[in-house]
Amino acid sequence: MIQRDDASPIPRPGGRTARVRADVLAAVERELAASGYDNLTIEMVAASSGVHRTTIYRRWGSVAGLLVDLLASGADDDWQPADTGSLEADLIRLNREVRDALAQQPSLTGAVIAASFRTAEAAEALTSFWQDRYVRSEVVVSRAIDRGEIPSDTDAQRLLIACTAPVYHQLVLLRQPMTRAAADRAAKDAAAAARAGVYVR
Amino acid sequence: MIQRDDASPIPRPGGRTARVRADVLAAVERELAASGYDNLTIEMVAASSGVHRTTIYRRWGSVAGLLVDLLASGADDDWQPADTGSLEADLIRLNREVRDALAQQPSLTGAVIAASFRTAEAAEALTSFWQDRYVRSEVVVSRAIDRGEIPSDTDAQRLLIACTAPVYHQLVLLRQPMTRAAADRAAKDAAAAARAGVYVR
Repeated sequence: MIQRDDASPIPRPGGRTARVRADVLAAVERELAASGYDNLTIEMVAASSGVHRTTIYRRWGSVAGLLVDLLASGADDDWQPADTGSLEADLIRLNREVRDALAQQPSLTGAVIAASFRTAEAAEALTSFWQDRYVRSEVVVSRAIDRGEIPSDTDAQRLLIACTAPVYHQLVLLRQPMTRAAADRAAKDAAAAARAGVYVR
Repeated sequence: MIQRDDASPIPRPGGRTARVRADVLAAVERELAASGYDNLTIEMVAASSGVHRTTIYRRWGSVAGLLVDLLASGADDDWQPADTGSLEADLIRLNREVRDALAQQPSLTGAVIAASFRTAEAAEALTSFWQDRYVRSEVVVSRAIDRGEIPSDTDAQRLLIACTAPVYHQLVLLRQPMTRAAADRAAKDAAAAARAGVYVR
């Protein structure tokens, strides 16, 4: 859930400072996905963004600082889960987003996760980012409750983790390929379990 | 599921070679858990094991080689999932093992996972190790089928991943604390979903 559509770049509320930040973070995304965290240097980001490296050093300090700001910019965006009208279809959309972001080569999401095992700063930024994403996803569960699809005392976080954790587990930890159909399957399983009342408090 | 009981060290089928391997790998476990992969050196392993560092270099080549052999030795062991007589209790035991291994400080399992994001060799060894553990765990599901607890066409891997993935997700990726009760909860949820027929093929 780190991905951002290429079609919707970081908002540029105007001003040179905001433009510089947008250009630099876009370059971090490109270079991180292309080369991985280990090979990322401020020089590469400078060359790719057209922003002078002394400006980048002054403002972000280090490669880790750039990564933390990239994640912070993701938390600022207006991402919302899809609203299809059914719990199962909403969960399928969620899992496809996660699966597609992790399965693409090179994967920005994969690079950020790898970086989180290198620096505490990146780990903290990733934790905050995911917490924010899971909180935003709770609306999927509350809408399903409002539609009477699942019990009213369903625990949203338990359901959302049950849905998405198998996708991360398969692609990030087990390092196995995962088809879209398999990611859909995990979403359908979580929806079916929720309907059966498994995640009630 | 990397953990090994302290009480049941690597088998020593006899012979100096086997003893040296057992001593060296036990030292790798100790030093990895205490210092992490980044700080692990062959010198530390030599000092801790009492085996000369030239012997270690000749036989394992590098720190990555030591880690790969540590995981291979885990695949050789006689680990089996608990057989309590009920699906739910077996899954709870499985999740507690995973949770306890990841939650302890320092965590050998956590160190190995971190290392898997550093070297391809470690990643491949970890993947093989987990595949072996998940295959061995399938007996939990076949026993539950034999007892008539769950449908006979239950997909063992889907159920086992649904049970354990939330524990890894919470502790490794989201980096949040997880109580034993929460790990038990994930196991109970997976058992309830299996009984409701969620994981049928």
